[in-house]
Amino acid sequence: MTAYDLSHELEAGMQTYPGDPAVRARPHATFAANGHRVTALELGSHAGTHVDAPSHTEADGRTLGDFPLDVFCLSARVVDVRGLAPRSPIEPDRLPGSTDADALVFRTGWDVHWGTDRYLDHPYLAARTAERCAERGCHVGVDALSVDPTPSANAADDEPSGFPAHHALLGADRLVVENLTGLDPLPERFELRAYPLALDADGAPVRAVGVVPETETR
Amino acid sequence: MTAYDLSHELEAGMQTYPGDPAVRARPHATFAANGHRVTALELGSHAGTHVDAPSHTEADGRTLGDFPLDVFCLSARVVDVRGLAPRSPIEPDRLPGSTDADALVFRTGWDVHWGTDRYLDHPYLAARTAERCAERGCHVGVDALSVDPTPSANAADDEPSGFPAHHALLGADRLVVENLTGLDPLPERFELRAYPLALDADGAPVRAVGVVPETETR
Repeated sequence: MTAYDLSHELEAGMQTYPGDPAVRARPHATFAANGHRVTALELGSHAGTHVDAPSHTEADGRTLGDFPLDVFCLSARVVDVRGLAPRSPIEPDRLPGSTDADALVFRTGWDVHWGTDRYLDHPYLAARTAERCAERGCHVGVDALSVDPTPSANAADDEPSGFPAHHALLGADRLVVENLTGLDPLPERFELRAYPLALDADGAPVRAVGVVPETETR
Repeated sequence: MTAYDLSHELEAGMQTYPGDPAVRARPHATFAANGHRVTALELGSHAGTHVDAPSHTEADGRTLGDFPLDVFCLSARVVDVRGLAPRSPIEPDRLPGSTDADALVFRTGWDVHWGTDRYLDHPYLAARTAERCAERGCHVGVDALSVDPTPSANAADDEPSGFPAHHALLGADRLVVENLTGLDPLPERFELRAYPLALDADGAPVRAVGVVPETETR
């Protein structure tokens, strides 16, 4: 099997969702002063590559600790939607005819803009697309900051506001994995290992890994 | 396959290695005020269940980012050393005759003391035991706070001081997984998935998972 890292590196000052806690990392113990190194971290539960639990946007939604561990090892199917214009919706006609997978991973290609203002202007799931995913029982992953439009200077008046795609998915007790990256070498189907930190909260950072049988590696 | 959670929950005020950063978790955005929930976290790179990189105790040791991702999916073999006295060494005669595994996971049973002062008084690896593991090319896991004795009120004068077991392992470019828990249902051999957060540092928290083929589940 070949394992692909689908995670952005966590580092001080990295890009976050607007308004989320800043990510900080500083030496707490140093080799010179203490003879060993320890790093102190500050970050939000949705920093970098992370998993959203239903309680992120749903009043009575479940937290990560409510899910059995094996839910986070998913048969995944890539939905290639590269080439979309900034801040454009991913419509339901982009979905595969049937979904024999635990998760649909939308490949927007927007991860190339990570760390820049343009990263905020990613394509997003139309509410109806998110609803269809939920109706099929699918969890969702995306290589962008959010499944809904992210506030930015370029937001248009006719965009959905709030969290309609989140509500469609998290309201149906589905999980959402955001800020994936490195999808390029993956075939259409792969195993997504997305075991979040053991934090019983609204979400948690994750080292997301894509696993492909050796024979299927491109 | 059956997946077992081998991780302590990360929560505010949880036990840490003496002197390490306190773990804090507080609401950053709330449903009432913001319409969604985000949690702000503070923690050290060695909080809870975590992976030590060589740079934790070695001047020129490698950081986590220097390791390829597949290193963190390990064939593991349990070394059952339950029943040892507090603060006693795990001697080399406890090692299996041969090691056809990527990692040896020492099961001290000390995880039952998690969250209490007694957790500090765990058994530890004698330096020679750690050296033998390194000579065999093995990474090491343990269901205790450290592979070396942890400072506590009960420390004895004749105990090793500093980090001899860490030096033997990390100095040989091996990895150490500490604060594992939940080893009870595992057979002697299992797959240890210990993908740390994508932090290029001296260590990082991990959601450690033990995977066992369905037919081998106890």
